[in-house]
Amino acid sequence: MNGPAVWVNGRPCTVVSVLDRGLQYGEGVFETVACLKGRARFLTLHLERLALGCRRLGVPEPPALRAQIEQVAAEAPRSLVKVLLTRGAGAARGYRRGAEAGTCVIMRYPWPEEAHPRAGARVRIASVRLGENPALAGLKHCNRLEQVLAANEADGAEADEALMLSTAGQLIGGTMTNVFLIDGAPGAARVRTPEIRTCGVAGVMRQVVMREAARAGLPVEACALGLADLEAASEVVLTNARLGLWPVRALPGRELAPGPLTERLQRLMQPLLEAPADD
Amino acid sequence: MNGPAVWVNGRPCTVVSVLDRGLQYGEGVFETVACLKGRARFLTLHLERLALGCRRLGVPEPPALRAQIEQVAAEAPRSLVKVLLTRGAGAARGYRRGAEAGTCVIMRYPWPEEAHPRAGARVRIASVRLGENPALAGLKHCNRLEQVLAANEADGAEADEALMLSTAGQLIGGTMTNVFLIDGAPGAARVRTPEIRTCGVAGVMRQVVMREAARAGLPVEACALGLADLEAASEVVLTNARLGLWPVRALPGRELAPGPLTERLQRLMQPLLEAPADD
Repeated sequence: MNGPAVWVNGRPCTVVSVLDRGLQYGEGVFETVACLKGRARFLTLHLERLALGCRRLGVPEPPALRAQIEQVAAEAPRSLVKVLLTRGAGAARGYRRGAEAGTCVIMRYPWPEEAHPRAGARVRIASVRLGENPALAGLKHCNRLEQVLAANEADGAEADEALMLSTAGQLIGGTMTNVFLIDGAPGAARVRTPEIRTCGVAGVMRQVVMREAARAGLPVEACALGLADLEAASEVVLTNARLGLWPVRALPGRELAPGPLTERLQRLMQPLLEAPADD
Repeated sequence: MNGPAVWVNGRPCTVVSVLDRGLQYGEGVFETVACLKGRARFLTLHLERLALGCRRLGVPEPPALRAQIEQVAAEAPRSLVKVLLTRGAGAARGYRRGAEAGTCVIMRYPWPEEAHPRAGARVRIASVRLGENPALAGLKHCNRLEQVLAANEADGAEADEALMLSTAGQLIGGTMTNVFLIDGAPGAARVRTPEIRTCGVAGVMRQVVMREAARAGLPVEACALGLADLEAASEVVLTNARLGLWPVRALPGRELAPGPLTERLQRLMQPLLEAPADD
């Protein structure tokens, strides 16, 4: 894989200060934005989540961020743009903030061409769980050790993704995805996704799927879900900003196939995924 | 405050790659080592905790780390040396580890000369709580957003430290300290400290205090504690690697004074704190 093109605070640069509080404490937020035909898909939603994270975590918002991302996206027909904002380099030691000005890192990666999205995801259940903290829930912040440990568990080599439970035992989502469970009789099927209240990331693609499904008369319920709900689901779909909808083809102990509801969601999402709108 | 002298992977350098997984995910561990008379205090214990963190989090251990720290400590009569080890810069995107070689950052700060340790700590209770995750508990890892949020709460300007509860409501410790509670009748006093099982950092100074107290016939019980235990305590002491013992002089709603047990612990610790042994 080629390395990314990188800009720091608007200039080509590949390093940050060791005193950056992003490095010291994981004090930052990030977004991974799919860019197609030179346009950043769902950019408004990504920027909204960044702004929310900045406000909640005290991370400065850089000026003209939308224009910077649009320009970086426009320079390649197809790319993944990762935006990472931190509190910045601090002169003082310790957790108390000083007058840090923030650091804005933009990385443009070549679009990854793995085959696995089309074949469907083989999914396992991670042993590592997610600690619960409403102050951090929903945000895509840079404290990601739990996801790193879950993605690198020794028995995980054969799986494409690992679903994670909260310490309380609720199903939350994958290490890099949100999850939708579909069940019920034909004609009375329901679609549910874990509520993101005490942990987990409220993904941009999750938000778009919920919006588009509701518009099409198929409301998605965000609620408390557990492993029993996963086992009872007839169809399971993962989502993230890059992959869009990623049907699950294997869970521990059973095979799955994309069913009618997955296909309906795919038809709803297809135009949005291929011709990126700005919201 | 002057900035620190900095070495990265053994060489004078003040930056790391933006691709360092320490920046991207907080995938690292750190220690803050008090160095007196050119010697790193309790270095063996700091190195043991670093090694434990490296093993549990998959962070490479740099070669000859002890010798590097000893040399950096020897170049100044009195300093604080912060050692930060990360997984290193990754070529691949995403949570799965590649062949990263690790990054070792050593920062030497001038010894801070604040007056507050002698006067005693004014302590508040943080609103932000600590998420529970046994996979991370005890380690001084770089996912420290909870501590940053707690240390910067709007009502915290008057306090020297904030004590934190777990999401389950147990007392765990301060943002940068461990805590000891002393209570009981004279002659039958007991010393307790929160168990570090689901969250919190198992501090080096906490470990030394427990060891020295036990040797002196004053065993410290590590157990589940709550706010009621804090309210019932007749003496409260904070510890960390820099401050050693830091008696609490004010809790919400009441004043405290160092009592006989605090003074006994101080007499036990004084020789170790002033003439740094290596363990």
